[in-house]
Amino acid sequence: MKYIEGGVCAAAGFKASGIHVGVKTKNKDKKDLALIVADCECTAAAVYTKNIVKAAPLLITKEHLKNGKARVVFVNSGNANACAPFGEENADKMCSKVAAELGFDKTDVIVASTGVIGQTLPIDVIESGVTQLVSQLSYCASDDAASAIMTTDLIKKELAVEFIIDGKPVKLGGIAKGSGMIHPNMGTMLGFITTDCSISTEMIQKALISATNISFNRVSVDGDTSTNDMLTLMANGLAGNNEITDYGEAFDIFTSALNSVCIELAKLIATDGEGATHLITCNVGGAKSEEEAEIIAKSVISSTLVKAMIFGKDANIGRILCAMGYSGVDFDPQMVNIALKSTAGHVTVCENGTGIKFDEELALKILTEHDITIDISMNTGTAECTCWGCDITYDYIKINGDYRT
Amino acid sequence: MKYIEGGVCAAAGFKASGIHVGVKTKNKDKKDLALIVADCECTAAAVYTKNIVKAAPLLITKEHLKNGKARVVFVNSGNANACAPFGEENADKMCSKVAAELGFDKTDVIVASTGVIGQTLPIDVIESGVTQLVSQLSYCASDDAASAIMTTDLIKKELAVEFIIDGKPVKLGGIAKGSGMIHPNMGTMLGFITTDCSISTEMIQKALISATNISFNRVSVDGDTSTNDMLTLMANGLAGNNEITDYGEAFDIFTSALNSVCIELAKLIATDGEGATHLITCNVGGAKSEEEAEIIAKSVISSTLVKAMIFGKDANIGRILCAMGYSGVDFDPQMVNIALKSTAGHVTVCENGTGIKFDEELALKILTEHDITIDISMNTGTAECTCWGCDITYDYIKINGDYRT
Repeated sequence: MKYIEGGVCAAAGFKASGIHVGVKTKNKDKKDLALIVADCECTAAAVYTKNIVKAAPLLITKEHLKNGKARVVFVNSGNANACAPFGEENADKMCSKVAAELGFDKTDVIVASTGVIGQTLPIDVIESGVTQLVSQLSYCASDDAASAIMTTDLIKKELAVEFIIDGKPVKLGGIAKGSGMIHPNMGTMLGFITTDCSISTEMIQKALISATNISFNRVSVDGDTSTNDMLTLMANGLAGNNEITDYGEAFDIFTSALNSVCIELAKLIATDGEGATHLITCNVGGAKSEEEAEIIAKSVISSTLVKAMIFGKDANIGRILCAMGYSGVDFDPQMVNIALKSTAGHVTVCENGTGIKFDEELALKILTEHDITIDISMNTGTAECTCWGCDITYDYIKINGDYRT
Repeated sequence: MKYIEGGVCAAAGFKASGIHVGVKTKNKDKKDLALIVADCECTAAAVYTKNIVKAAPLLITKEHLKNGKARVVFVNSGNANACAPFGEENADKMCSKVAAELGFDKTDVIVASTGVIGQTLPIDVIESGVTQLVSQLSYCASDDAASAIMTTDLIKKELAVEFIIDGKPVKLGGIAKGSGMIHPNMGTMLGFITTDCSISTEMIQKALISATNISFNRVSVDGDTSTNDMLTLMANGLAGNNEITDYGEAFDIFTSALNSVCIELAKLIATDGEGATHLITCNVGGAKSEEEAEIIAKSVISSTLVKAMIFGKDANIGRILCAMGYSGVDFDPQMVNIALKSTAGHVTVCENGTGIKFDEELALKILTEHDITIDISMNTGTAECTCWGCDITYDYIKINGDYRT
């Protein structure tokens, strides 16, 4: 498997576009409509937020994906169409308009929205941009679509890989957005992945759920699970491999590539956490089970105090042990070792559950780097898990103290 | 029941003292040793943090309270004696030293520590202050003890009430500390309550657990459950009422007073949340059960985005609905109404799960007050619950980015 250019258009037979139409009223340079269109019908799968309060486009998309097929992804940013008047009606109108313009059925459309919650979607504004959006579709415009789904994101999130199945080169790529209101134990934030792999509806759904569980569901920015999280995967089969219809080598190669793309996109989301200045990776090893390791790693990366300690470059071991202790996992604190790592070095700060003297100067150097790893050894088994988060900063509060206006 | 002065010394037969001895090395004006001593043996009860990582003094206190009796509370601030070398040995030394000075048995002592985690307790420094601490014991020094248990707290937390049982005036008062690392679903932060009520060991424990569940366990500052949380209650019986040995009118009067003191101390802790500028009260009414209402209210006050929105005075309904939605409670969002209240007025921002147009100017006025109430109606039942939290601010991050140094 190798990383390639092209994002969501890297796979054969996928066009994209992205334009500004006016949902984002304040800044006309910011794109707010994105479109992805497949040259032929795709098997398709999606995972959704586990938040009880679900945005209208998720309900419409779920309905449209009942047959396991799709051809189009249509997204607006700037308004979440969640808890808003005429929510489902407006999400349905988005599908009808773009389907009519493309000559498809509206049930071929995956629809998504992201932005402010609780305000009526400006459907007239969106509809007015559809003709232009369709006219700009191109095989090399993943970049435009990736820009158009951003809200408070500072970096564009797109990635693609190439791998071989049945001797055929297969491509898979995606775009994602997400910066705030991000927390594990959910569907995910917005992510759209395309592939030219040939794979059945049943197996594509299995692959997507398993990839989500070890990537997007292991990221936390702020502990808040969004109402609009959705990740979709469309496969058009143009790579020419034998259709994957069961577990086996081909499925393993496919999921390995899908997992890599999802994990890297998830890490980009943590890196781009609202106001964040550090990417925090928490490895928990030597655990009794992967589930136990995951619960502890998530608890550590979700702790506001751990986030503040990383922001402050303060190697405060108590914050980490404390977050492990309230995770809900039953473990023996006296078996735990903890180290802090970055490209600047490695320092052990806790042995057998007790804080030890360490080189404070080295610890400060380690914590000055952007990418910081908290390495936890439980010393009670062989299972492990990695989760990703970011620090909490003055800017996070500034961004979210004044999000609507 | 009426509120009175005197804090933890309000009840007959309780002395207290508080001094600076040097555990807090940076500021010699800050007291760091507190002592509460009863004139006679007390029935006693305690609740502890549910964090798996427990500080050494909690383990020692648990051991000492096995007989349901105590006479002394001895606390240091500045060092948590958690995850620290010689933890239990040093907690035991604290008890022995103060017991010897007072002429009691060490098992009569409740011991507690609060401050930095992971560093060795300076036991010599603490021991050197015990003689002075004992010599300064007084029936009107609740204030000194309340000061001496503070860490990042900005306000002293003490309260007392008087009520009548069997025609006898009974007094109950307490002190508490807590500002950061505070989250529901736990024992509590540090709190010490005294009463001259006569009540059995069995009933005092029942009263304390039930009071904790509706007070300290309904507060969140930052979602981080401390390793050192502990709340104790000592009753010396000097009020002369018939000993409470079962449920009934006397127990109800007692628990009602205890609940009031615990709730008011808990609200003081939320008010004094690290860096906080607002006390947030979340009422959830019309719920199917109190448990459901509590889970939703806790989810709202614990949400980082709700906290940031209150800090930014931004009536962003989406943040509240979102936090309700991921609380884990299964409810119909379309039945939900939400209003924001303060002494400046009242504004409904959500009806039937949908954001509605509201007076933005009035909303800003409401959110400019210190005490803000988020009023949620589920419209599916008659149960209700109230929880308390605070906003998240630049100062919270500043305080916790640099806690150790």
